[in-house]
Amino acid sequence: MSASDPVVVERILAGFKPENHGLGEDFLLTKLTAMKGCGCKVPRAVLLDLLADLKDSEGAVADLEQGIGLDSCVIPLRHEGMYLVQTTDFFYPLIDDPYLMGRVTCANVLSDLYAMGVVTCDNMLMLLGVAKDMNDKERDVIVGQFMQGFKDAATFAGTKIRGGQTVRCPWLLLGGVGTSVVSQNEMSKVDAAQPGDLLVLTKPVGGQVAVNSYEWLKNGSERFKELDLNEARVRRAFQQVCEQMTRLNINAAKMLHRHDARASTDVTGFGILGHADNLAKAQKAKVQFVIETLPIIEYMDEISKKMPGNNGFNLFGGTSAETSGGLLVALPEDKARQFCKDLEDIDGHPAWIIGRVQEAPDGVNNDAVIAKDYKVVSVPSNIH
Amino acid sequence: MSASDPVVVERILAGFKPENHGLGEDFLLTKLTAMKGCGCKVPRAVLLDLLADLKDSEGAVADLEQGIGLDSCVIPLRHEGMYLVQTTDFFYPLIDDPYLMGRVTCANVLSDLYAMGVVTCDNMLMLLGVAKDMNDKERDVIVGQFMQGFKDAATFAGTKIRGGQTVRCPWLLLGGVGTSVVSQNEMSKVDAAQPGDLLVLTKPVGGQVAVNSYEWLKNGSERFKELDLNEARVRRAFQQVCEQMTRLNINAAKMLHRHDARASTDVTGFGILGHADNLAKAQKAKVQFVIETLPIIEYMDEISKKMPGNNGFNLFGGTSAETSGGLLVALPEDKARQFCKDLEDIDGHPAWIIGRVQEAPDGVNNDAVIAKDYKVVSVPSNIH
Repeated sequence: MSASDPVVVERILAGFKPENHGLGEDFLLTKLTAMKGCGCKVPRAVLLDLLADLKDSEGAVADLEQGIGLDSCVIPLRHEGMYLVQTTDFFYPLIDDPYLMGRVTCANVLSDLYAMGVVTCDNMLMLLGVAKDMNDKERDVIVGQFMQGFKDAATFAGTKIRGGQTVRCPWLLLGGVGTSVVSQNEMSKVDAAQPGDLLVLTKPVGGQVAVNSYEWLKNGSERFKELDLNEARVRRAFQQVCEQMTRLNINAAKMLHRHDARASTDVTGFGILGHADNLAKAQKAKVQFVIETLPIIEYMDEISKKMPGNNGFNLFGGTSAETSGGLLVALPEDKARQFCKDLEDIDGHPAWIIGRVQEAPDGVNNDAVIAKDYKVVSVPSNIH
Repeated sequence: MSASDPVVVERILAGFKPENHGLGEDFLLTKLTAMKGCGCKVPRAVLLDLLADLKDSEGAVADLEQGIGLDSCVIPLRHEGMYLVQTTDFFYPLIDDPYLMGRVTCANVLSDLYAMGVVTCDNMLMLLGVAKDMNDKERDVIVGQFMQGFKDAATFAGTKIRGGQTVRCPWLLLGGVGTSVVSQNEMSKVDAAQPGDLLVLTKPVGGQVAVNSYEWLKNGSERFKELDLNEARVRRAFQQVCEQMTRLNINAAKMLHRHDARASTDVTGFGILGHADNLAKAQKAKVQFVIETLPIIEYMDEISKKMPGNNGFNLFGGTSAETSGGLLVALPEDKARQFCKDLEDIDGHPAWIIGRVQEAPDGVNNDAVIAKDYKVVSVPSNIH
């Protein structure tokens, strides 16, 4: 089954009109926060520093207990051979349709399980901060539709929401917790990348550019005119990013097992390079991840180039934030192409070989880099 | 082992001086939010309405799958005879010591597991929203100490933090997720109260009054003078509430098993009556919970009486919010007294028989009420 729900595509193409839901024409969900989606993350360096004290001085239990830093934590249970895999994420609205925002939020939480090859989520908790500036009508519509989207995504993923917490908050805060109890063979490898492996990415980057350029259009920002942007192309890119943010990484997770993946993560707030770097550092072997190709949502590379430094949002530097981005996977060379083909056959969207794993240069710790002569692949929308 | 950590009591008595941590003398953690502790909850009626759509139309799996409404969700796993028990909570600072706030936050999350008789937490996730108005120094001190307190409480409870999420937020947002995988006999009964049972409470109420009256004192509020409050008594009540908020309900949870408890919940944002009502509605039998005694932190009943309506915070109406409050337990009549005695022997703090379970009157749905002739028991601090 495709990881895209046709219901969602229909809704994306229709667009969200607040007045059809009894809200004021000028109601904008995205005004209920000053930060958008995974762009709200605390800067990675600050976070690592703050978290340093939390790391367990006793060390990990075997090599199966993944600590803070990977997508999900993996905890050996008291029950022999069983593991608790768990992840949480919360952020702020970055699109105006509350239903789609619910789908994105749920997909983004589940993605951390999928990044570990865990395809069955045993329980979802929903986290919700209800913006205090909403009136009762707005609250009922927005929260109701958000919950419905979150629930539909959970159902689509084969799981259920059975718990959560709701508080009042200055901003609309959206999130969830995904949990699964699995045996070891239900998880794929995450730390076994080898020099010679290829890197695959399952959704293009450029999400932050797509969401922001659409914001400029919607708000009549001067920036839109200054950069001389094309309205139709910006709208199309926005639809494209909405589709890919709602699309579950579940089929990519299944492929991890089928094609003997050696390491994987999902691409979110720290951008493709940030997450590639995290993943490289988590490997047992001495490796460097080299990104040679950047698949980018069509037109977003052009917008980034029009911006200061010819590199708006540092898109070409690899740290532009994604929300509910694709999986980044290290695979044996002979498996990578088939992985991409099989995934495209099921999902109806392409995946790309974007780089390779090489031995870390002498004296250099594991890391990820973008090759000097990297190529950009422009990825057109295929929803209609 | 007592559920109070002596380290905490020492810290409470010493008081928090921001200048000793390199912060400005006037730095107040509690200014980083406009709502305090569990007082931030969305009103219960609104919440139940919003959540109505989420309830599973397929119905619960047997009677073991607890839905939204109870303290933790309980999910039968694919692995025969095993259950996932899970809870989440997040809120805002209500005291100024970030270390103690970390302890309170962790204790408050764990309390939902303890309320189900689950004494072993397999994993904690930490949820953190870093207030955007803090400078770097403040952020490092506050977040560092908060994390340390949270971690120490987790260690004290015999669990570990292995995951979480950190975002920037207008307010300092604090929370966690507690998860346990258990067999059925590791959970106590929650829905088997019978007419004739007695109700026990393990911490006094009045927390919201204690925290707020201390705020008035600290901020030099006019209110403090108008109500002619006694500074020493307000300080003492604040220390008392800090101690009980950091005290784990773990020993009370163990007593649930030992004394054949039939139903239990923990008392937090909806107040003693709100949670008693929730619990009554979750019972299989047709019952009404009647609260006949309100154990109240010393002096807080006097303060409430000095306020408008002679009932500030609706303390006597039973809806004044508690943060990390005690367990409310329904027990067979012949077990209740021993429950209180055994708990006091271990914890060094009393528990009280506060009411009884009776048959619900004809035509009345299960609910909880405060008896017209209820008594107040004033509970003095016993930390020094």
